[in-house]
Amino acid sequence: MSAPPFLTISRRTRKTPFSKRVHQSGVSAYTVYNHTLLPTIFESIEADYRHLKKHVQIWDVTCERQVEVSGPDSNQLIQMLTPRNLDGFKPGKCFYAPITDKNGGMLNDPIFLKIDKNKYWLSISDSDVLLWVKGLAYGMGLNVLIDEPEVAPLAIQGPKSAKLAARIFGEQVHQIEFFNYSMLAFHGCKLLVSRSGWSKQDGFEIFVTGTDIAEPLWDALFKSGEDLNVRAGCPNLIERIEAGLLSYGNDMTRENNPYECGLGRFCEPESAVHCIGRNALLKVAAHGPKKQIRNFSITGNALEPCVHPWPLFANGKIIGEITSAAWSPCFNTNVALGMIAIELSKDGNQVEVETPNGFRDAIVKKSSFI
Amino acid sequence: MSAPPFLTISRRTRKTPFSKRVHQSGVSAYTVYNHTLLPTIFESIEADYRHLKKHVQIWDVTCERQVEVSGPDSNQLIQMLTPRNLDGFKPGKCFYAPITDKNGGMLNDPIFLKIDKNKYWLSISDSDVLLWVKGLAYGMGLNVLIDEPEVAPLAIQGPKSAKLAARIFGEQVHQIEFFNYSMLAFHGCKLLVSRSGWSKQDGFEIFVTGTDIAEPLWDALFKSGEDLNVRAGCPNLIERIEAGLLSYGNDMTRENNPYECGLGRFCEPESAVHCIGRNALLKVAAHGPKKQIRNFSITGNALEPCVHPWPLFANGKIIGEITSAAWSPCFNTNVALGMIAIELSKDGNQVEVETPNGFRDAIVKKSSFI
Repeated sequence: MSAPPFLTISRRTRKTPFSKRVHQSGVSAYTVYNHTLLPTIFESIEADYRHLKKHVQIWDVTCERQVEVSGPDSNQLIQMLTPRNLDGFKPGKCFYAPITDKNGGMLNDPIFLKIDKNKYWLSISDSDVLLWVKGLAYGMGLNVLIDEPEVAPLAIQGPKSAKLAARIFGEQVHQIEFFNYSMLAFHGCKLLVSRSGWSKQDGFEIFVTGTDIAEPLWDALFKSGEDLNVRAGCPNLIERIEAGLLSYGNDMTRENNPYECGLGRFCEPESAVHCIGRNALLKVAAHGPKKQIRNFSITGNALEPCVHPWPLFANGKIIGEITSAAWSPCFNTNVALGMIAIELSKDGNQVEVETPNGFRDAIVKKSSFI
Repeated sequence: MSAPPFLTISRRTRKTPFSKRVHQSGVSAYTVYNHTLLPTIFESIEADYRHLKKHVQIWDVTCERQVEVSGPDSNQLIQMLTPRNLDGFKPGKCFYAPITDKNGGMLNDPIFLKIDKNKYWLSISDSDVLLWVKGLAYGMGLNVLIDEPEVAPLAIQGPKSAKLAARIFGEQVHQIEFFNYSMLAFHGCKLLVSRSGWSKQDGFEIFVTGTDIAEPLWDALFKSGEDLNVRAGCPNLIERIEAGLLSYGNDMTRENNPYECGLGRFCEPESAVHCIGRNALLKVAAHGPKKQIRNFSITGNALEPCVHPWPLFANGKIIGEITSAAWSPCFNTNVALGMIAIELSKDGNQVEVETPNGFRDAIVKKSSFI
């Protein structure tokens, strides 16, 4: 394994209202996500992981950009975007939902937030949903406003996150249920605070509007959390694979439909009659997907990072691919995510994977590690 | 200035058919562009620059993704995308043209290539034009196919590039005029070879289809170019600023219209009657833009990289911003690009700029340095 390359930063790889604090906290690596810097490592992936599972971390996830859709036709447009049936979607709720194209291919997997009767935020993964939604609205002549507002999500993640959040926003944070949000005050501003985040360690995402309170909020969290051993962190490769959290662009692309991604429970094309890709999705739903994402354990010692898909083999034939992998110190194995032919996807099934470190055994796990 | 951060590579930050060769050539830094790795530095920005201006370089610009639009309604859709009048657009031609939204804001500034009667490639800068075009086509119910084909552009750039290209593709490369292309053979494949590229040192872009011939083509160029001192390279920050070549996301964004970007000569909203943003653009054209991109010379010694806009001041008021800057060893000044209020944009006008290294004088240059 050679040294990782450097990242050249420019205006195009946008900084965030928290970038100064992230830098001061000793960030060592980034990725670029939605044209925005996303930290990937502080101390080391393993040290960050151990800390995340025990304490509480503050994550700059400004890269989760918001696509704001508002106006008279917004309800119609929003329901077109996804096969998830949005009846009963009310302010205060967060809906995870795939966005699909005409072929049922995944364009993104955002969290939909209903802000108001005719106003939504899509908290997106890494693709320009703004352009998709603007194109649809223009093409159909819809009466909507579409924009990327100045919203910078900051996540509190880790087992101690409720304790820390309560010190800033009050005890009411304990009442926020998973995938719900409340409007809570900080420095006189009402901020959207959701119980969500890209880890399974409990946590919140604070949708910071305006840049004035970004550093004060960051500083308040660090001051209040000193005895909780608060640290700057970021989505952690090991923990998110253990948790089976999918990464758009890594574990699924436009080539995959939501059923293949194990997101069938968020697809109701029968009742979401205006959703884009309905016919394609009804067809997949009727017959079932031919392949599907699974969790895997890969035998042997720690593998190199998975920077391109590793082919899976059974009886000498390619039957799928591993798309994310990391060594788990807790489970003492390489944890992984990948897509495998449905007939070989049963819990405990063993196949072979070709890694940069040679051929290994890969064992299908029905559920995630944590 | 602290050490630059590392880049974490994953499947999402896509590798290219040339990535192995780029790595073997000693790349030291990347950026991420269209979800794809783009090298930014090999030896050093300055060493790369001196070499580019004297010899010939091979650039992996796979990140210039192609959006392919084909089918019966493709001509209608393509002309909607841009205010540039595409009458007379024929196979063999490359048209640089802004893509604008309803407000006249720049969504991208691709090179349009006409491949066939009903088939186009848009060779895009850094935004998901694929989603914009797919959204429009779906919304309007157009009969088109839209895809991102497996095309990996490889650039030959530098004063010796025609000499090198001729050794691979034959003497006919000398006949290809700037912003034209020919279909030329390599290893039995017909490849689109255009006279274009993101430098002012002359050059070609080879649109490599399929991955089988990527490494053979790279190797052939290096073998044939040994006596020409061929090296791996990449778009060079210093040279592209000297040349006044704009970078979407750096020097212009969705907030800017093409007139502000000095791209008025590519806007014909009067005759491009179906272009998106026509009304907004007609209005700007009638009154002229209020601000415009200019080249600048910034006094004093070498400045830190410009990673966020630096405000420009006149009489204590903000009147623009610098968006790209680099020290030029040839011109012995900091060369820069930025946007300035039109009434202060005359050649030779002097204003002040607030840089990370303090206040400096910035002098407007009417034309680019080279």
